[in-house]
Amino acid sequence: MHSVNLSRKFSSFSDYWSPKILGELNDSYVKAVKIKGEFVWHHHDNEDELFLVTKGLLRMKFRDREVLVREGEFVIVPHGVEHLPVADEETHVILLEPKSTLNTGNIQNERTVAQLDRI
Amino acid sequence: MHSVNLSRKFSSFSDYWSPKILGELNDSYVKAVKIKGEFVWHHHDNEDELFLVTKGLLRMKFRDREVLVREGEFVIVPHGVEHLPVADEETHVILLEPKSTLNTGNIQNERTVAQLDRI
Repeated sequence: MHSVNLSRKFSSFSDYWSPKILGELNDSYVKAVKIKGEFVWHHHDNEDELFLVTKGLLRMKFRDREVLVREGEFVIVPHGVEHLPVADEETHVILLEPKSTLNTGNIQNERTVAQLDRI
Repeated sequence: MHSVNLSRKFSSFSDYWSPKILGELNDSYVKAVKIKGEFVWHHHDNEDELFLVTKGLLRMKFRDREVLVREGEFVIVPHGVEHLPVADEETHVILLEPKSTLNTGNIQNERTVAQLDRI
């Protein structure tokens, strides 16, 4: 057992939209991801996802509205719900989601990251 | 879907060692707990637990050592591992653990909180 320092982890990588595994518990991974710009509309058939913002501003778009997630805030996206993460500036997000979760959910394209690094 | 502001949630209660449910995803709860002083040695037979410190300092004692968890850091305690959370000053912790998790694990005593409030 050891403590994991979030800001130190974020300072160890610079690529966007490429989640890194920080730890695992039960059937889930804790991941760190830097985001900037717009991702891709997708949903997850079976997995709920938690997005905790540690820096910046996440605009989580849903088909009918947008939820602003600021530093020190989280949002939970239930399975089956289409969403589009957007960040106008670089934003740091801690993800918590089942190990089976693919970043692009039901979509497979050039944004899909199937193999995640551990940092 | 809505965003949850951690510091606002922490300012809404003042009791120690009484986790509040902030949200749920998959089979887990996200909880907020204020701690101060020493808890009770316990383990969880089946549940891994994540402790993320948002304020203060958590000293997580294990039988063979102690892990310091500072603001912006987390520690994961695997199931089966005896642990004793200690905080010399008021410390704010976000917990992530399966819904089945009892705060005192294998121990049932006056510190056990079986029914958790949602805030």
